[in-house]
Amino acid sequence: MSASEKKIQFAVIGGGVIGGGWVARFLLMGFDVKVFDPDHEAELKINQVIENARRSLPGLFEYLLPDEGSLIFCSNISEAVSDVQWICEAIPEHLNLKQEVFTEIQAHCSKDAIIASSTSGFKPSDLQDVSSNTEQIIVAHPFNPVYLIPLVELVGHSKTTEKAAMILKQLGMHPLIVRKEIDAHIADRLLEAMWRESLWLINDDIATTKEIDDAIRYGFGLRWAQMGMFETYRIAGGEDGMEHFIEQFGPALKWPWTRLMEVPELSEELIKKIALQSDQQSDHYSITELEHIRDDNLVALMRSLKTKDWGVGNQLNAVDESLESTSVKPSEILTQRSPVLTSSRVVPTSWLDVNGHMNDSRYAEVFSKASDIILRRIGSDVDYIAQGFNYFTVDMQISYLNECLAGDKISVFTSIHLAEGKKLDLRHEMKNAQGTVCATCTQFLIHVDLTSRKSCLPTEPVASILMALN
Amino acid sequence: MSASEKKIQFAVIGGGVIGGGWVARFLLMGFDVKVFDPDHEAELKINQVIENARRSLPGLFEYLLPDEGSLIFCSNISEAVSDVQWICEAIPEHLNLKQEVFTEIQAHCSKDAIIASSTSGFKPSDLQDVSSNTEQIIVAHPFNPVYLIPLVELVGHSKTTEKAAMILKQLGMHPLIVRKEIDAHIADRLLEAMWRESLWLINDDIATTKEIDDAIRYGFGLRWAQMGMFETYRIAGGEDGMEHFIEQFGPALKWPWTRLMEVPELSEELIKKIALQSDQQSDHYSITELEHIRDDNLVALMRSLKTKDWGVGNQLNAVDESLESTSVKPSEILTQRSPVLTSSRVVPTSWLDVNGHMNDSRYAEVFSKASDIILRRIGSDVDYIAQGFNYFTVDMQISYLNECLAGDKISVFTSIHLAEGKKLDLRHEMKNAQGTVCATCTQFLIHVDLTSRKSCLPTEPVASILMALN
Repeated sequence: MSASEKKIQFAVIGGGVIGGGWVARFLLMGFDVKVFDPDHEAELKINQVIENARRSLPGLFEYLLPDEGSLIFCSNISEAVSDVQWICEAIPEHLNLKQEVFTEIQAHCSKDAIIASSTSGFKPSDLQDVSSNTEQIIVAHPFNPVYLIPLVELVGHSKTTEKAAMILKQLGMHPLIVRKEIDAHIADRLLEAMWRESLWLINDDIATTKEIDDAIRYGFGLRWAQMGMFETYRIAGGEDGMEHFIEQFGPALKWPWTRLMEVPELSEELIKKIALQSDQQSDHYSITELEHIRDDNLVALMRSLKTKDWGVGNQLNAVDESLESTSVKPSEILTQRSPVLTSSRVVPTSWLDVNGHMNDSRYAEVFSKASDIILRRIGSDVDYIAQGFNYFTVDMQISYLNECLAGDKISVFTSIHLAEGKKLDLRHEMKNAQGTVCATCTQFLIHVDLTSRKSCLPTEPVASILMALN
Repeated sequence: MSASEKKIQFAVIGGGVIGGGWVARFLLMGFDVKVFDPDHEAELKINQVIENARRSLPGLFEYLLPDEGSLIFCSNISEAVSDVQWICEAIPEHLNLKQEVFTEIQAHCSKDAIIASSTSGFKPSDLQDVSSNTEQIIVAHPFNPVYLIPLVELVGHSKTTEKAAMILKQLGMHPLIVRKEIDAHIADRLLEAMWRESLWLINDDIATTKEIDDAIRYGFGLRWAQMGMFETYRIAGGEDGMEHFIEQFGPALKWPWTRLMEVPELSEELIKKIALQSDQQSDHYSITELEHIRDDNLVALMRSLKTKDWGVGNQLNAVDESLESTSVKPSEILTQRSPVLTSSRVVPTSWLDVNGHMNDSRYAEVFSKASDIILRRIGSDVDYIAQGFNYFTVDMQISYLNECLAGDKISVFTSIHLAEGKKLDLRHEMKNAQGTVCATCTQFLIHVDLTSRKSCLPTEPVASILMALN
């Protein structure tokens, strides 16, 4: 067995939100974990975090994760750390306490083990202060929820952080090696700056916590899920580049735009340094390419929140509601079996596949939404579902006749071929703006009781609406 | 026609990135726009922004946007503003220049028109300084790209900002009324704090622009696309709530975690204020509910970046690659027609629909990905596609036999029913962990030339691999 194939064993000292998150990440990625936490509720708390991880982390991937590792609760540090390769420290942020724990860990662990502190703020040199073997103590600072957010800041001796980075990649994480130690590393310095400004805004009655949160999640937060601050601003600077952007916005540094006024001097040297780093980061893309990447990502991100009707997704759904009333008339009772318009939309960039056209499964999505409109128009709406009834699809057959490209306008017309007893048989036809048929679909649905999950006859108002169809 | 039905007309003064973004948003949401910008390249620049908006904005919605409004370029301010209800100012950030432009606008526009400055930093009272009719001048600060990001900060006289908020909602935007004027409003104060700290990090050689951007987009940026800072921290505080969180992290204010040291005093009063606001914002959800919402949103957001292989999406795809090799063996040449494992995965929370089970269209997605594996294993891989060949789906028929719930493990086994000439006929079977068949699918594909988009015979290596199948 080669070194890379050998299964790493982990220990976690301290089982709070962060320690528990590490435990969950290790376990679900297939590794064994030993835990020590003197709190008698630690096991309960950690298991809650693992439950959260189980319901979310595996869904990130298109393949099954390896079998879960095993979890052992230990009664002391020595038992937890004696034969593992990675010891994760996640105890409260008190330097003396951490140093004491490191001393005990080092008395019992292998000299080659990595001792990784989750500290948000302390530097490795602070942590190593009383240590005999300083090189093995590093910072590996994760972000909550640790089982989902990939970033880990690594700070410490380069030999150890490089080895740690390899291991974190096996955990599906994104190691960021911080080359120079500093209080609060990188991310928490940025967070701390924003936090301090936020406190001022609340203190001075400018904004509430909700208003600040909304300013983030309906605004720049969407940009930052995909590009950071500098790549975003590079685009804003346009073809003139980062130097132009800084020159344009540099003067704001002298203005009272924040209460945090200890600003660096924006010398020519600093401007050049930023512009050069930005080039190295992004100049393999033109501004137009970056704009397209940014916009496609924003569309995908914003669309992804629609299902949960959360934040910007709720916002978009409200627009949809105002748009649908004029086209597919979801609240108008259906009176005919013959074709009615059930969808009228544009193909989003996020629906393309490797062939550069709308992926075959998205046709199913369009037809599925089209039948949702028919269902609403025959009375199987939110209220009916709340009563415990709806239709389930039993069979769907799609014939693909023409390609659809991003931006294509497509319409679906749906007719009711059969509506009898529990059965509902729909025929969909998808056309593009030129009137060419892109696909047809026959969809067979059956009426169900949502409590028993068994088929049953439709109740009111659906039964009567179906009866009255022409 | 009621007031709410009357179509608003807009004017935009200044056609840069922000002005152009406003123009695009107005037009694509169906409103007429008049533009004045003395720059002879303005028309070209604005049209580029409109093109970007056309390829992205309509894809956010499940319905067609109204017909585009008309765009008129005007030769002076008077022509642009004389008969419109909303005048958007998006000229450079020089107060004197803005005031001059407002004076000219007010000489020609209706007294009831809203004059909305896009300024990032100036307060309404600065802008109104030389004005005769101060109430009509407000700040409506948008975020780049204006045609996609919903947030607009509104500052000024409440009668005007409330009217403006109604109009912005018609544009699919999220108005945030800032109740008390302040330099840089809310969002840009937060941004400015982070920007200043970022400049320090670069100045002091702690981090490069790329490292800072990665710290954001692999870390807290993902959280902020859906919840802001306070709701995120509320969860981190656990059941003990926001007061506990602040008491735990409050001491960091005294520590050198940022170079921006002008911090507010964390008095008991301020802590109580924040905790109360946080309760008002979020206490209709328990911490467990918030954790689930956060995690489901994170899964949906992170998954949405996989198609574009960007940022965290690239990260997740790398994990997929390491996982798939052990299950569906995409790089192993297929030698049999009989069933092989083509998918082994978990149903993500983001795939559920109103019935609480995996949406019918997601079955199509699973089967579509399963045939991608067959295609790769018969030689139609990235290289083959780069040569200009692949298969397109022509017909897909799915029989739905059992429900799948979030977290269910599902496997797909696929056999080749027919592989002859251009034709490829696949049979898929989807099973859950108990071995129950959840669905079957017959999928008929045809081999195509990606340049002509016409069918053609497979070339090497696909032809030989198909020939050799047992």
